[in-house]
Amino acid sequence: MHKDIDVFGPKQKGQVFLDQLEKKQFLFSFVISYTETCTIPGITVAGKTPEVLPYTSPADAEFLNFGYCKCINAIPMTPDGKPTPALLTKTALESASIPNIVINAGSKIAPQLPCFETGLSYGKNILIEPAMSLDDVTHAVEYGRLIGRSLGSTTDCLVIGESIPGGTTTAQTVLTSLGINGTVSSSMQENPVSIKQKIAIDAAKRTDSKNQFDIVANGGDPMIPTVAGILSTASAQTKVILAGGTQMAAVLAFSKITGYNKDNVALATTSYVTDDLTSNLVEMVSQIDDVPVFSVKLALGNSKIDGLKAYANGFVKEGAGAGGASLAAMLKIGITSEQLLELTEKQYREIISQ
Amino acid sequence: MHKDIDVFGPKQKGQVFLDQLEKKQFLFSFVISYTETCTIPGITVAGKTPEVLPYTSPADAEFLNFGYCKCINAIPMTPDGKPTPALLTKTALESASIPNIVINAGSKIAPQLPCFETGLSYGKNILIEPAMSLDDVTHAVEYGRLIGRSLGSTTDCLVIGESIPGGTTTAQTVLTSLGINGTVSSSMQENPVSIKQKIAIDAAKRTDSKNQFDIVANGGDPMIPTVAGILSTASAQTKVILAGGTQMAAVLAFSKITGYNKDNVALATTSYVTDDLTSNLVEMVSQIDDVPVFSVKLALGNSKIDGLKAYANGFVKEGAGAGGASLAAMLKIGITSEQLLELTEKQYREIISQ
Repeated sequence: MHKDIDVFGPKQKGQVFLDQLEKKQFLFSFVISYTETCTIPGITVAGKTPEVLPYTSPADAEFLNFGYCKCINAIPMTPDGKPTPALLTKTALESASIPNIVINAGSKIAPQLPCFETGLSYGKNILIEPAMSLDDVTHAVEYGRLIGRSLGSTTDCLVIGESIPGGTTTAQTVLTSLGINGTVSSSMQENPVSIKQKIAIDAAKRTDSKNQFDIVANGGDPMIPTVAGILSTASAQTKVILAGGTQMAAVLAFSKITGYNKDNVALATTSYVTDDLTSNLVEMVSQIDDVPVFSVKLALGNSKIDGLKAYANGFVKEGAGAGGASLAAMLKIGITSEQLLELTEKQYREIISQ
Repeated sequence: MHKDIDVFGPKQKGQVFLDQLEKKQFLFSFVISYTETCTIPGITVAGKTPEVLPYTSPADAEFLNFGYCKCINAIPMTPDGKPTPALLTKTALESASIPNIVINAGSKIAPQLPCFETGLSYGKNILIEPAMSLDDVTHAVEYGRLIGRSLGSTTDCLVIGESIPGGTTTAQTVLTSLGINGTVSSSMQENPVSIKQKIAIDAAKRTDSKNQFDIVANGGDPMIPTVAGILSTASAQTKVILAGGTQMAAVLAFSKITGYNKDNVALATTSYVTDDLTSNLVEMVSQIDDVPVFSVKLALGNSKIDGLKAYANGFVKEGAGAGGASLAAMLKIGITSEQLLELTEKQYREIISQ
């Protein structure tokens, strides 16, 4: 039993999963991507202006690895001081000496660090055109499978996080098109549910196909099939944690067709996502498969720093695999949410003094 | 004691190194690169014509991962049936379920698989101009360090192989410029020692600098500083085996400046390199540092297949980390050279029937 982790879905299976990973080795993979869908006004706060949105994901990847960004001159942060969730991810990974590997699955801007390259293009704005070609979806799954085969064999648990601004909107579209009922979460305090659902419905009208690859090509983004590919081969060898909110529900839904070892898969997110009354992560996952959802009760609500405290009030909530990375650190070294908060505040102070 | 492995250099240290890796986990990283130096007539057999030389390394990477090549329509093989050493590497890695990760450090052609991308350009022909800029050397070391940090933390032993046609000539130039006496090995039965030494001397004349970075920029190739960077951070965390012949001596010589944990480093190659009377791997390494050299006594001389038997007669000898991969398989699962030969012959028959 972990005091800072709630288990949803198949509880006993989830508890066994956690017990098996106690004190084990983790590898964090960070899939960065881009979809022009994020430029639709009102759907994301992951960037102050449309111009900086393509830099969000590579900047997160650089921050994770260097503690500063190279492609932009600042750490991703809202004007009023709410930092990127990559800050939580970095703190958690460093606390437990968990290595990370960056995978570029269609980022518009390449990060200035060595990363697994997939050769994928970024996704198009699904409001006006299909996200990508069917060939691109196939390519993403195939390259994901190769990456998962390599990475899955080197660790007791592969944690997969993602960063793609606007990604909850494409996730909503894929989930809706695949017949999963529910609404996705948001990085905004006021979840623009109706805008996302309207985009999902409008985008879905472009195709009658029930084929899962067609659905992702039409309304998804490059992150979804890439992570599905990684999941399929990695879960054949080791435990895999899909680290994220409702976007990972879209990955899991699509993965029904690409395949995975059900006993080796779980989702992990922050309690700010599972507590979100405007979205239904746990219910959506239960419609897809008998897979546990771990909710990490971070202690950001106790922070003296407003930008961190905001997470507990519904801003940002999750991202860059923050929940899964925190879970991994807790399992590997037994660190608590309060201890993670202390380290996070220390990192926060360091970056604002840069 | 391993009947198929000879230890040269500090023997006791080498034996302890081997003992510590018994039944352990290995990760094979495969650094592919290119230097226009390979177009100088008479220095390599790694490609039938100058036009196909840029495809050799990516084709090796594809073959390792798929069992066939994507960027070319055949398996790299000489017209008379001598196969790429990647055949030995693939057989060894598969026999022991050792994962591999490809790192693109300046290949002229990108392999059609996901790989760690460094953004490096290929090296220039050192006979007529400097191999690369000082900035490129620094970039290669920096990216190598980041890759080594990630990969080194996921395994008990990181094996680093390489594929770069013409690479022994750039290695000769770097070794000579760094004051190491000796001659490099060759993929040809008649080692064109005098051509290589003349190139080394002529290239060295372009600079008076004794700075190691200047020397690699002038007469090296992108593989050398990349592998040096990987070695520096990976050896701080885990054991590292530089898998290759005299090219890895050049890496080790340059690594004196970029740093490494001496207790965690060894070279591994085939006995076809250490038996080669025209080159001096062991002697050169002893001039550089107190680092063991493992020589794997493969059994290709016993093969009924002429193209494989040729290795024992001085053709090809080594490449694509074949010696180190074979060593890793022997240590991990106790496979012998005779058993590896049997598997290699099986693979050979499969590829020629494709």
